[in-house]
Amino acid sequence: MDFFVFVDLIGTIAFAISGVLTATKKRMDVFGIIIIAFVTSIGGGTLRDLLVGFPVAWIRNTYYVYFIIGCTILAILFRRKLRHVRTSLFLFDTIGIGLYTVVGIEKGLSADLSPVICVALGTVTATFGGVIRDILCNEIPVVFRKEIYATACILGGVSYFVLLFLTPIPEGIIFVIAGSIVITFRLLAVHYKWILPTIYSKEELENLN
Amino acid sequence: MDFFVFVDLIGTIAFAISGVLTATKKRMDVFGIIIIAFVTSIGGGTLRDLLVGFPVAWIRNTYYVYFIIGCTILAILFRRKLRHVRTSLFLFDTIGIGLYTVVGIEKGLSADLSPVICVALGTVTATFGGVIRDILCNEIPVVFRKEIYATACILGGVSYFVLLFLTPIPEGIIFVIAGSIVITFRLLAVHYKWILPTIYSKEELENLN
Amino acid sequence: MDFFVFVDLIGTIAFAISGVLTATKKRMDVFGIIIIAFVTSIGGGTLRDLLVGFPVAWIRNTYYVYFIIGCTILAILFRRKLRHVRTSLFLFDTIGIGLYTVVGIEKGLSADLSPVICVALGTVTATFGGVIRDILCNEIPVVFRKEIYATACILGGVSYFVLLFLTPIPEGIIFVIAGSIVITFRLLAVHYKWILPTIYSKEELENLN
Repeated sequence: MDFFVFVDLIGTIAFAISGVLTATKKRMDVFGIIIIAFVTSIGGGTLRDLLVGFPVAWIRNTYYVYFIIGCTILAILFRRKLRHVRTSLFLFDTIGIGLYTVVGIEKGLSADLSPVICVALGTVTATFGGVIRDILCNEIPVVFRKEIYATACILGGVSYFVLLFLTPIPEGIIFVIAGSIVITFRLLAVHYKWILPTIYSKEELENLN
Repeated sequence: MDFFVFVDLIGTIAFAISGVLTATKKRMDVFGIIIIAFVTSIGGGTLRDLLVGFPVAWIRNTYYVYFIIGCTILAILFRRKLRHVRTSLFLFDTIGIGLYTVVGIEKGLSADLSPVICVALGTVTATFGGVIRDILCNEIPVVFRKEIYATACILGGVSYFVLLFLTPIPEGIIFVIAGSIVITFRLLAVHYKWILPTIYSKEELENLN
Repeated sequence: MDFFVFVDLIGTIAFAISGVLTATKKRMDVFGIIIIAFVTSIGGGTLRDLLVGFPVAWIRNTYYVYFIIGCTILAILFRRKLRHVRTSLFLFDTIGIGLYTVVGIEKGLSADLSPVICVALGTVTATFGGVIRDILCNEIPVVFRKEIYATACILGGVSYFVLLFLTPIPEGIIFVIAGSIVITFRLLAVHYKWILPTIYSKEELENLN
């Protein structure tokens, strides 16, 4: 199996699980859960494909749809195993953005787009599904929150191109490194409560108008 | 006139009225009402066309736009007749999702898509306009609520394919049956306060975390 | 340089600044600000291009992306000069919708679309970026508010076609007039607290149900 198809599938599983966890937290019914899991999994890739002008993958590829429904049902059945919902949700969401950033960059490269656009597409692919999930579940969307989120995707995407242009590391390995940077950076950032150096003066921070 | 063009027009009228009712409830000005009615009518079909790769119908078909504006103005003038806004809104929205589910399935079939995708497109066509209407009017989106909504569309869509594959009933009649199932099921579900069998244990329902 | 490319760039600057002002008001970090500025600038044009079936401009045009990032960084550095954030935000947003209305109409004409659709596309181009900006920044979206907003775009768009069909004024000048009408009308409307003549009876206004 193609490496990127594999990465895409694992990312799909991670986001489907994150969708199930968010929807069951809201005590949605079983169809609601399937819809949220589906939208979380395919939201980012769908927007990316529309922007680039690719045909939307899941429309023609029924296996993809059955795969998501299957993952969702398994995740519903075994959701008790994921006892600490908050931690599990954070973990699967983080794995999802790491893998989807890489998938988005690769899709951009396959359409001969420039590095800055590829990084943007990686970020869109990674973050948009989670944003829709949160809006539909009436949660504060993850990008609004103070946490490092899209920043991790941008950092991973930039690392990809820096390593590609400045080192002799083979491309396949660079993809693995870039995805790992996204995941590791977000895990560390949330664990150690990292925030970016502030651009605001003390005075500005005191006067939230 | 083509059967599906007819169904589409009736669905458009129903959703335009539901948009007018929601917007006048918020005391929007006349341009605001027209925009909300328009978005409610064309939102679902537009997303469906973008996903499948069809050209967006209303962009090239000016009659469609004038038709919606005309319906909207009539609905504004005669809104007093719809005294019980809450009931009327529910009714027109329900007729809308029934008809648009059928329109979405037919569009999917016309692009040779598989049954599961056709059901998904029917559901998207039926529900997305109402979701945008509610977000723009600052109402809780209808899909968030506990009511049976998307579930009725999925049930109607699945019924269509079950009847198509397992019975000798002609396709045109099956479409009528499928649309009626969506409408009847939602009417009954809301009237009798049906909910789907819960997947949650008693313990989970007590601990909404 | 082509006249419309110039108008588009000025509109882009105005919306990028409005994005920076909204995001810094929320004390977002520097990546967050860049993402909001970018989305505000390209949101409306992107939706318009998807609806018409044009390729999305910024995907293939890297200069556009660097231009927005450059404007954003300048706007961040000089944000102190824009002391009265509320007034500045209103001003740049208003310039943005005026210019983008004109750009949207011109794009519609270039695809041989009818006047009513061109006006709709002008309004979409002008308003959608600001709507996304407000949703992502957790502000009440500007179109929900009581202010004249989309109405100014529709009025400017209709004026364009009235002048084109009924007067001998050259097209280039009509574009300038139409954009000025949008900007002037909104400035005056907000300054003098204009509202459209109400369609509601006294009784209806008292009974907000």
